[in-house]
Amino acid sequence: MIEGHGDDSYKYGRAINIDFSSNISRSIDLSGLKTHLAECIASSGRLGKTSDILSSYPEPEPYSLEACLAKKFGLPSSSVCVTNGATEAIYLIAQTFRGTNSAILQPTFSEYSDACRMHAHRITSIYRLPACPGKSSDNIALPDEVRMLWLCNPNNPTGTVYDKHELIDLITAYPEVCFVMDQSYECFTLRPLFTASEAASYPNVLLLHSMTKNYAVPGLRLGYVTGVEGLLNRLRTNRMPWSVNRIAIEAGLYLIKSSPSGYSSQYPFNVAEYLEETARLQSALKRLHGLEVWDTHTHFFLVRLRYGKASALKEYLIEKHGILIRDASNFEGLDEPFFRISPQTPEENDALVSAIEEWINNV
Amino acid sequence: MIEGHGDDSYKYGRAINIDFSSNISRSIDLSGLKTHLAECIASSGRLGKTSDILSSYPEPEPYSLEACLAKKFGLPSSSVCVTNGATEAIYLIAQTFRGTNSAILQPTFSEYSDACRMHAHRITSIYRLPACPGKSSDNIALPDEVRMLWLCNPNNPTGTVYDKHELIDLITAYPEVCFVMDQSYECFTLRPLFTASEAASYPNVLLLHSMTKNYAVPGLRLGYVTGVEGLLNRLRTNRMPWSVNRIAIEAGLYLIKSSPSGYSSQYPFNVAEYLEETARLQSALKRLHGLEVWDTHTHFFLVRLRYGKASALKEYLIEKHGILIRDASNFEGLDEPFFRISPQTPEENDALVSAIEEWINNV
Repeated sequence: MIEGHGDDSYKYGRAINIDFSSNISRSIDLSGLKTHLAECIASSGRLGKTSDILSSYPEPEPYSLEACLAKKFGLPSSSVCVTNGATEAIYLIAQTFRGTNSAILQPTFSEYSDACRMHAHRITSIYRLPACPGKSSDNIALPDEVRMLWLCNPNNPTGTVYDKHELIDLITAYPEVCFVMDQSYECFTLRPLFTASEAASYPNVLLLHSMTKNYAVPGLRLGYVTGVEGLLNRLRTNRMPWSVNRIAIEAGLYLIKSSPSGYSSQYPFNVAEYLEETARLQSALKRLHGLEVWDTHTHFFLVRLRYGKASALKEYLIEKHGILIRDASNFEGLDEPFFRISPQTPEENDALVSAIEEWINNV
Repeated sequence: MIEGHGDDSYKYGRAINIDFSSNISRSIDLSGLKTHLAECIASSGRLGKTSDILSSYPEPEPYSLEACLAKKFGLPSSSVCVTNGATEAIYLIAQTFRGTNSAILQPTFSEYSDACRMHAHRITSIYRLPACPGKSSDNIALPDEVRMLWLCNPNNPTGTVYDKHELIDLITAYPEVCFVMDQSYECFTLRPLFTASEAASYPNVLLLHSMTKNYAVPGLRLGYVTGVEGLLNRLRTNRMPWSVNRIAIEAGLYLIKSSPSGYSSQYPFNVAEYLEETARLQSALKRLHGLEVWDTHTHFFLVRLRYGKASALKEYLIEKHGILIRDASNFEGLDEPFFRISPQTPEENDALVSAIEEWINNV
């Protein structure tokens, strides 16, 4: 794995007061979940020994949660595979299709290339996204030998959502290519995306989902893959048992069953309001001298310093303000001046703008 | 993964009252841990956002828990690798040494061969253990081409502990072989085993440990590997990030720090008392007509029906008594009459003896 993912506050002696570094919305209300899990754990001895959330094994594969998700999406259970975060799904797919020719739309989440390298894929990087704000991009063309395409939609770190019609054209134009589409941020955009059942209607699409992102529970590690049964069965034969712990499974069942509007509504929070605040923060940052602020279709976005390195800004913000940002210079295709911001509350966002302005004026 | 591991109560409509099927000691007092975790979860919003046990990422690799374990064992942190249960360690080792020649001492835990098959090892099965009670076994001799030996010590499902001097002789006689020794049940025997620092003094030993087993928390998924730094670094380059969830890490830190005698004492409970109760249960079963009861060096043991199949006994015990046993017929080298018992409280053990006697009298 790479050094330098977001949410790396564990590395710093200084307490972090505001975290803009991981694409997690901390505005999601988790009080119901917290109460439920705390009760499950506290009462686990009294519930009957074999249903003890600590002292009994989880299901070898999370069948109950897979069935629950499948029901929500109108899919057979065999079309859903619950994993130890979307990360397990990425590594499981790379392992299952070991040694294949993979193309990756860059810049993007580094785990696709890490997983592909680990499992001996031959990797082609396709730089699809504009290198600077406002520049339009060409259509995606895949080299002949490619058999798997990895893309993140909305894309981390750029915030771009690919045009759905263009994706459908690609999927049908390249039937011999397996499309791995990571929709971990699917709850954080208003642009059209694939639903689980749409994706499962294609023989060559694996859709990745993240309960980590959708419900702001990265501490638990909970994701899932949806797709046509044949592809999912190949993944199943390559997974280890008990990879998802029992508390995560319990949390998943609770979150889906307690969601008043049903999970299919996709949005456990007011996404429009969240994107408006993102736009407000972007405007405020654009008014600062010395920053290029990238357009986004979701809540997080890239910023490029006209002068200096993101690593220096990051150090300054931690030291002086206990503020954590994501130095984005280690994304393939990006360089030292790039950082990524994931907006928080309006007050916290204002604090970020002031702190960055202070740094710019002092460089 | 195989179908038919222990603790498969999730498959049955009938509630399970007593579970003899997984090698977990439910006599371990988890009340302190439960209170601690319930408090961590309930108060997570109030602790400060970036230390939130649900809404912040775990460390990509559990550095803090690795350092804590290393300190206990007098090892450098680089000699400890914390995993998502010992199961992740098994698959990680098989993956890291992909395609090698592995020998497995059978009958044993099926995940070694499953993991080796998944990662293209050539597998030799060595049937070391007596095929019936009382028969002594030959010394272990490894075929020339073997480069990795997998053994479970104490061994699941037989309960045998290998002679430590014989193991030391083997390790030094075969310096080109990597010895993977799974000590998941190390807290459940009084026979001499390798300590973490002893094992790390050899260049060719990986020692697997299970907090799942030692502290009866299989729901959490928490294990670790210890060994010489060079071997551990090879594992680290092949692991995915965030495989251990934050609640499991918190539980591990709590269990080690709160252990009054320190973790190095190995025993979080009275093992002598536990083994005495095992011997008492074995004697009671031996008095029944129609059972062969295997000797054991640990708390669990094998039983073989003289007439009938373990699967039929298992069904009967679930239906009539809500009792779960481990049908052991799917262990390589065992057959249909074998089952495995993991003793529980004296009263529960007596109930098992009565229920088995009832079945024998009715077959």
